[in-house]
Amino acid sequence: MSETTFIATLRALAAHPGARGLMDDAAVLDIGGAAIVLTHDTIVEGVHFLPDDPPEDVAWKLVAVNLSDLAAKGAKPLGVLAGYCLTGDDGWDAAFVRGLRDVLGHYETPLLGGDTVSLPQGAPRVLGLTAIGRADGGAPSRTDARAGDALWVTGTIGDAGYGLALLQTGETTPKAPISAYRRPRPLLLEGSALAPHVHAMMDVSDGLLIDAARMAEASGLALEIDLDAAPLSPDVLAQPLDGRALRLSAATAGDDYQLLFAAAPDMTLPVAATRVGTFAEGAGLTLFDRDGPVPLPEKLGYLHG
Amino acid sequence: MSETTFIATLRALAAHPGARGLMDDAAVLDIGGAAIVLTHDTIVEGVHFLPDDPPEDVAWKLVAVNLSDLAAKGAKPLGVLAGYCLTGDDGWDAAFVRGLRDVLGHYETPLLGGDTVSLPQGAPRVLGLTAIGRADGGAPSRTDARAGDALWVTGTIGDAGYGLALLQTGETTPKAPISAYRRPRPLLLEGSALAPHVHAMMDVSDGLLIDAARMAEASGLALEIDLDAAPLSPDVLAQPLDGRALRLSAATAGDDYQLLFAAAPDMTLPVAATRVGTFAEGAGLTLFDRDGPVPLPEKLGYLHG
Repeated sequence: MSETTFIATLRALAAHPGARGLMDDAAVLDIGGAAIVLTHDTIVEGVHFLPDDPPEDVAWKLVAVNLSDLAAKGAKPLGVLAGYCLTGDDGWDAAFVRGLRDVLGHYETPLLGGDTVSLPQGAPRVLGLTAIGRADGGAPSRTDARAGDALWVTGTIGDAGYGLALLQTGETTPKAPISAYRRPRPLLLEGSALAPHVHAMMDVSDGLLIDAARMAEASGLALEIDLDAAPLSPDVLAQPLDGRALRLSAATAGDDYQLLFAAAPDMTLPVAATRVGTFAEGAGLTLFDRDGPVPLPEKLGYLHG
Repeated sequence: MSETTFIATLRALAAHPGARGLMDDAAVLDIGGAAIVLTHDTIVEGVHFLPDDPPEDVAWKLVAVNLSDLAAKGAKPLGVLAGYCLTGDDGWDAAFVRGLRDVLGHYETPLLGGDTVSLPQGAPRVLGLTAIGRADGGAPSRTDARAGDALWVTGTIGDAGYGLALLQTGETTPKAPISAYRRPRPLLLEGSALAPHVHAMMDVSDGLLIDAARMAEASGLALEIDLDAAPLSPDVLAQPLDGRALRLSAATAGDDYQLLFAAAPDMTLPVAATRVGTFAEGAGLTLFDRDGPVPLPEKLGYLHG
């Protein structure tokens, strides 16, 4: 069963409005008038991180990907609960705690609780984290983009995917893409600043194209993306690929954790972002660049299962 | 590194009062005057459930153990987030969703969100769940028992442990202990009724003796337990063991999910419970029965790692 099929079977259990039909990055509960945002992400050794990734970085990433979901709802973190697996490697466990201390300290987020269990020797590590936050700016969904809205993305895309490719071939430079892969930065301040002004927002976790297509589908709209507009870092641009292939590679790579949002095209943005597309009545994603229409790649991004 | 050592290293990251020093069953946040209770438990195939346990029962147990933590804080569930691992066995996944539907429906608890990931073939399943609830009766901690308080436990103990032992030797009867192991009942109504009246409360997850000792230690008190008072079901009593060994076996078995609480000895209980001990100034757990002092068993309950 694929992740998509499985989630479809779960949807029947998620009729509560706070579940947002399991279509959003996070659940949002109204508690005494406060919008409380809840998200849970699991990362698996060999799937979401490499067995020889430094444990400090694994801890960083586990927290960062969850805080990124809070950022996408404009929420400030109230705390996290960690589901940790001991595997008998004391050095790894101690280094993981150091990384957890770094990232929680950096984002001023308390550890509230969780659970620690033992895994059988040799089993891949499975690490879960739940983050809870409070959104005072409206907790934008991914479902409310409007026809005529522009699609914007913060920062640059494809860095983490390039970093992963470097690590997989044993390279250790350039440093910036590797750091983007191992220590993603949840855009909490940007998300809070954007939330009151956008119609829809999510984070880019599986790739710009697939996540943009998800926002369009969830909003019941068509979306056209200008591939040439995709913001790329100097390191990503320096790869030996021709322009279109390079842009498609960056736009389908996972782990960016940039913010992707729909807003009126003439909005004055409170943070720096790049306009990459336009929503319209209809359905489906289309791509173009300076040379004309771009056929959709077979994989729009990273898909589990 | 043992679970206990690991949690000690985490404690430095959990200075927030809502974390309750990682000593309690759950975290408690004050959100707009409401006590919001958060708990996360992970269960591992081969550790917390058997590879041939019916997937419906595994789903039930995953939810039930988390709702039991809410019950222990007197909280009503607002919803859960599930961290699920696909392993390529579609029948198992579909049956798990059926079990999830059963237990969430039974306890009127919505699925709010979560994450679905793929595990490498052959890896043991690791299933996480976060439950969020609201405690309007004070969210009793496990740290506030008072000298002179009685220790009470709901229901009977040792049933699930006996059920596990039966399954491990291939037995399928008696049914009640097996059901206690596979489909524990979180005592949500009892927890809500008790919360305003007790000084300290927790659920019995690792065994009566170890959990009672934890409450005494967390409260800075000594605790004396009358082993003969331990409430046992007819099935557990019918085991071919002499009285003291049988009671020690039941009092050190895990997975009971009864509520354990400290309250004034003359309190009129709102729910049925059995008095099993008394708190006093000092430290340490002591046991006695009709034949005199009982030496503490080497293992007071189930310990991970």
